[in-house]
Amino acid sequence: MSDRIDFQVDPSNYRHWRLEIDGPVAMLTMDVDEDGGIFEGCELKMNSYDIGVDIELADIVQRMRFEHPGVKVVVMRSGKEKVFCAGANIGMLGEAGHAHKVNFCKFTNETRNAYEAAEEESGQKYVAAVKGSCAGGGYELALACNHIMLVDDSSSSVALPEAPLLGVLPGTGGLTRLTDKRKVRRDLADVFCSTEEGIRSRRALEWGLVDEVVPNSNFDGVVAERAHEFAAASAKEDVAEGIELSPLRREFSDDAVTYSSVEVAVHRDAGVATVTIFGPDDDLPGSMEEFVEAGDENWMLRAARELEDAILHLRLNEREAGLIVFETKGDGEAVAARERLILDNADHWLANEILHYWKRVLKRIDVTSRSMVCFVEHGSCFAGPLAEILWAADRSYMMQGEFDDDGQPMAAIGLTDGNFGRYPMANGLTRLRTRFYGDPGRVDGAEAAVGRKLEAEEAAELGLVTDAFDNIDWDGEVRIFLEARSAFSPDAMSGMEANLRFPGPETMETRIFGRLAAWQNWIFQRPNASGPEGALRRYGSGVRPEFDMERA
Amino acid sequence: MSDRIDFQVDPSNYRHWRLEIDGPVAMLTMDVDEDGGIFEGCELKMNSYDIGVDIELADIVQRMRFEHPGVKVVVMRSGKEKVFCAGANIGMLGEAGHAHKVNFCKFTNETRNAYEAAEEESGQKYVAAVKGSCAGGGYELALACNHIMLVDDSSSSVALPEAPLLGVLPGTGGLTRLTDKRKVRRDLADVFCSTEEGIRSRRALEWGLVDEVVPNSNFDGVVAERAHEFAAASAKEDVAEGIELSPLRREFSDDAVTYSSVEVAVHRDAGVATVTIFGPDDDLPGSMEEFVEAGDENWMLRAARELEDAILHLRLNEREAGLIVFETKGDGEAVAARERLILDNADHWLANEILHYWKRVLKRIDVTSRSMVCFVEHGSCFAGPLAEILWAADRSYMMQGEFDDDGQPMAAIGLTDGNFGRYPMANGLTRLRTRFYGDPGRVDGAEAAVGRKLEAEEAAELGLVTDAFDNIDWDGEVRIFLEARSAFSPDAMSGMEANLRFPGPETMETRIFGRLAAWQNWIFQRPNASGPEGALRRYGSGVRPEFDMERA
Repeated sequence: MSDRIDFQVDPSNYRHWRLEIDGPVAMLTMDVDEDGGIFEGCELKMNSYDIGVDIELADIVQRMRFEHPGVKVVVMRSGKEKVFCAGANIGMLGEAGHAHKVNFCKFTNETRNAYEAAEEESGQKYVAAVKGSCAGGGYELALACNHIMLVDDSSSSVALPEAPLLGVLPGTGGLTRLTDKRKVRRDLADVFCSTEEGIRSRRALEWGLVDEVVPNSNFDGVVAERAHEFAAASAKEDVAEGIELSPLRREFSDDAVTYSSVEVAVHRDAGVATVTIFGPDDDLPGSMEEFVEAGDENWMLRAARELEDAILHLRLNEREAGLIVFETKGDGEAVAARERLILDNADHWLANEILHYWKRVLKRIDVTSRSMVCFVEHGSCFAGPLAEILWAADRSYMMQGEFDDDGQPMAAIGLTDGNFGRYPMANGLTRLRTRFYGDPGRVDGAEAAVGRKLEAEEAAELGLVTDAFDNIDWDGEVRIFLEARSAFSPDAMSGMEANLRFPGPETMETRIFGRLAAWQNWIFQRPNASGPEGALRRYGSGVRPEFDMERA
Repeated sequence: MSDRIDFQVDPSNYRHWRLEIDGPVAMLTMDVDEDGGIFEGCELKMNSYDIGVDIELADIVQRMRFEHPGVKVVVMRSGKEKVFCAGANIGMLGEAGHAHKVNFCKFTNETRNAYEAAEEESGQKYVAAVKGSCAGGGYELALACNHIMLVDDSSSSVALPEAPLLGVLPGTGGLTRLTDKRKVRRDLADVFCSTEEGIRSRRALEWGLVDEVVPNSNFDGVVAERAHEFAAASAKEDVAEGIELSPLRREFSDDAVTYSSVEVAVHRDAGVATVTIFGPDDDLPGSMEEFVEAGDENWMLRAARELEDAILHLRLNEREAGLIVFETKGDGEAVAARERLILDNADHWLANEILHYWKRVLKRIDVTSRSMVCFVEHGSCFAGPLAEILWAADRSYMMQGEFDDDGQPMAAIGLTDGNFGRYPMANGLTRLRTRFYGDPGRVDGAEAAVGRKLEAEEAAELGLVTDAFDNIDWDGEVRIFLEARSAFSPDAMSGMEANLRFPGPETMETRIFGRLAAWQNWIFQRPNASGPEGALRRYGSGVRPEFDMERA
């Protein structure tokens, strides 16, 4: 395994995917390079994937929105003869440690959610054109598309063989999308998920596993036809040109990552990472034309990209940093002014994309399995999208009153209209509505404070922070919190946070992250799957796994 | 640990609870016998509990409904000086195997749900009168009550110290009831759940952790006053006399349990248990008066009690029977006729209790972590409440057409009005609505078939069974299914079934069983909790646990 998993890739260097764009239709061909695996010695045969393959896919899905806004339909298909996709690479799953497996699944889930939502958010519809075997994670790739076409031949099938074959779950949304998205009858889903060879042709259609079965004789023709039909029926406006997402300005050192507007510092002994987000350093664009002109140099876009990369880096590469401290530095009004331009032009394609992108980045924070705290210090700029982090974190502490000689503007929080609907969580609620789930009147109270600088006393009064401390108490309280939190069992914290962060209503998305993933994590930890005689490790060895048959 | 955990207890032999009934108010005193633990050597100090303590509580809750219907308020309090309840016994959790821990939590959750729902279902309101330390599972006992009174003294507090102290979760509904029932603000919940010593007095009230704080000087007086206020305000009708729940007629042999209307046969080599429910053998009561007269001898009540005991026995005592086969024998019309009397008199207190009881028993089946299948054979009686088992099971197979020489009436399913609302699942939907989650019109189709004998062809057409086989195929198909299912990883089946059985909407109850419990199971499996250096094992030893700090 390479030392550091890098989430930045460049289209010129894709190893596993090919993209051809023809007007409003993009053909996205999965053609995994067997020798391009992240783990030494794990050949990615049969279009199976590891996180490296998914990083490229996530990059494509992201660029599709920003660089190729003219695309209305993306057809996902295979570049291999006999297989659409065999799913996650079993060798990798067998060898990888528990934390890698869990984080791998989280990232692939986020990628699936991103392209599934692209139709509703941006009018980009993903279509799966399935020819050959489409199994496990392969079928989960298709399930997240919003139209599945299956060739009608004697060998092509869709399958979720994880349980019978590998002793694990279809855990990248598979089980949940069967029940919640495709609403397959539960006993038929049970038959399907325990049938190794999968379901073919008409029966797959009858059971609701695919949307369309297409004769082999003219598969490519019908796929192209359908893609153009969807494109013609799309409500997406025509956008001639996108903006380029150029490589991040980013520098790694042993215990830090420095971006243009984000800084990550890792204190490994303490088990803490600090993520500092710097407020705008660009000129405030006067119009969307100027905004488009500045492209990915706009702070609103740049900060989101850098923050996302930082979070993913910490998740996969700094796994013992169990506590993330979020800080901001800069001018909250400057943050709000940049968001204002976007909110005022929310129907402009790029403004729309940026709002949805911030939503996705903030959702990544919500499901990040680390304790998270915000320190709202003097000179900070928790406003608009950055204020959301206050409520994504498990707690937020704020400086109250003047501190000695810090020479910084008084700590203040800036609520904006964006905080009241633009960045919903996976549960469908805003973070403020989630926070005040038991007391919705407080959301109105907060809304009445939009546009004002809210210093500690008022912010605490409004319930926007957990607590506020003056200069006598601040250092001690902060230290006590950091030390206590870092000493707790990381597993207990993960479980506690996963439950407390999502009160109330559930959606398919929360069910995937909160329920399906928790069961999968449990199974990944069980000897029946991951032990030396377990199904994951024995797969392909010719030796049957040995199970402890006790039911838990 | 005793050889067999027995879920039948007799009030005359309670070791851990005392019950005093005074008109509409019952005082339920938890006074755990330290030496009465189920596990050898685990002393149940400080009112801590193991499954034996909870079996008595479940028995009390059940008898409250049937034997003491005049009770409108149950006050739960402690018989110990300085502690309300210290939660689940840590020694037991440290020593018990994974499967016992998981099943213990499931059973205690079911008990909490039962008394929490008693107010809505029967007008019996549970009140927690908390004096002394109320920690972990102790606070979870209180959280499931619908009014929590906390004494205002210098030492009494409520706490969920599982995460900081034991490295596990408050997994008996604690986290979920904080967020969903009491709607505690999530960052305050985070503070609360990581504060070992808990929260006292006014602050507990302000944060929504309790409903009332009462001066120490007159705690008992205020509790009594409140209990009588609640009783006076109750809409529950006055019922002078209940019916007795006499000991089950039950006989154990090495591989079978024989009840009056249920038979369990365990085939350990095959990993299969068969549960056969026999239809009515009693006289059809002509009125509710006759029904009350017959009391627990009525088949409707007797079969429910026996089925419940059988399920619990299999869960805890036959853990390698990974597949449960449900069969019925008897007259479906006789089942429907008995249910009819109850449905026609649903506002009669006993009819109401029996409908809710069947609902609870069926819910126990829904969350039983075994593969489940119904075989609808000739001579069977899957009708009304028994038909629900067809859709609680993962699959159902039905005999089609005449079989050689079996001399039995043709296999038929009998739908009743009861199937369309009387036995909702934990997700709030009927089993038929859950089954046809993607196709609600099919529920109407089924409803139009109420009252007819539905043989295989029609039952399959209506989607009521997974498949139907004739006498040529039956034996082979059944054998193939049993063999295949029993060979799969039991963990993968548990996870798959837990996800497929509950599509769509979630409730606090499904979130407790599906989300919270899955995280707890994961943590129970982690070395940081259950390993030799883990927090559960090291607790009380004076030696700090050692954690692998990697976040998963």
